[in-house]
Amino acid sequence: MKYPAGIQKSNVTSNSRKKKVQYGHRGMTLEKDIDTTNKYYLNTNRAIIHKKPTPITVVNVDYPSRQKAKITEAYYKIPSTSDYNGIYRGKYIDFEVKETRNETRFPFINIHEHQVEHMRKCHEHGGIVFIIMRFHAHDEVFLYPIEKFLIHWDNYKLKNGRKSICYEDVKRDSHIITEKFNPRFDYLQVVDELYFGMR
Amino acid sequence: MKYPAGIQKSNVTSNSRKKKVQYGHRGMTLEKDIDTTNKYYLNTNRAIIHKKPTPITVVNVDYPSRQKAKITEAYYKIPSTSDYNGIYRGKYIDFEVKETRNETRFPFINIHEHQVEHMRKCHEHGGIVFIIMRFHAHDEVFLYPIEKFLIHWDNYKLKNGRKSICYEDVKRDSHIITEKFNPRFDYLQVVDELYFGMR
Repeated sequence: MKYPAGIQKSNVTSNSRKKKVQYGHRGMTLEKDIDTTNKYYLNTNRAIIHKKPTPITVVNVDYPSRQKAKITEAYYKIPSTSDYNGIYRGKYIDFEVKETRNETRFPFINIHEHQVEHMRKCHEHGGIVFIIMRFHAHDEVFLYPIEKFLIHWDNYKLKNGRKSICYEDVKRDSHIITEKFNPRFDYLQVVDELYFGMR
Repeated sequence: MKYPAGIQKSNVTSNSRKKKVQYGHRGMTLEKDIDTTNKYYLNTNRAIIHKKPTPITVVNVDYPSRQKAKITEAYYKIPSTSDYNGIYRGKYIDFEVKETRNETRFPFINIHEHQVEHMRKCHEHGGIVFIIMRFHAHDEVFLYPIEKFLIHWDNYKLKNGRKSICYEDVKRDSHIITEKFNPRFDYLQVVDELYFGMR
């Protein structure tokens, strides 16, 4: 899957993965692990959270039979929202999944401005909004509340600040999501603690 | 856009539209009107509600240049959720948009089982869930709460009942969304009355 310039999906090529592969998630990307986790939540009726389909502009369609339309020309579009949303404990939940191989920082080139502004608005309207962020070099996955992320983003956009967030800043303001067998990344456990005051 | 058997989108062909065209929405479908309405809500910061992209399975992609990926073979997938969701007054909101030319009933063939079951779950989890339903023959657009719709659906699925809902039943259990200039169909006004007890 190839996106227009400036967008990098969390998917990484199997080549570059090989160096860092861990026991649990050989050949899997974080997005796939989150999809598996969401399926688990759905099956156990804990939450209804789905990944949105990738937005595509369809230019040409063939109809080889009555039943099946074959798209013969189409292009990927820049997403105008985050990839995941749904409902949990009656609340609106919205997040992005991002990973970086950078050891010391999360570069903003990994995330699109439309997505950030969408998440800002959802937060302002009372939603539970965050980024699930993996640092491959440290083999750590964080739940990073959007309001913490926005401090760095606004510093970059409005004050010509750094184009990235230091790993140490992410670590300080985030919450580790521990990897398990099933669900793979139980991020709702962190949501329970952070947003519902549970332990 | 052609969907697999059993799915009919709210879009209607321009040919069949011509007979019934009204002043305000010449050549427009209800989905487009709702998209326009959602854009208005977004611009006025009233709600953040988006249509999900159409799910597509990509089979083949060409890379004629570094910047642009061209999809050369892809197929429409059956959607597993409803088309619209978002956040309003801090609440999760979820709905489908459907239209029928049938004068006396809404046939269930217009809606897919996965979508209904998704909406049932969202309702059970405390979301605001409904169908925006247009009867072309009556030139009426209704907000139909999912819990009312489910009575007829379950009667059909579990008790071998009617494969459709009578227009009179829809009218009795729904709330008219009046057409305006901007926003075109101010369905949140109905949501305010129905779910937030406002007048």
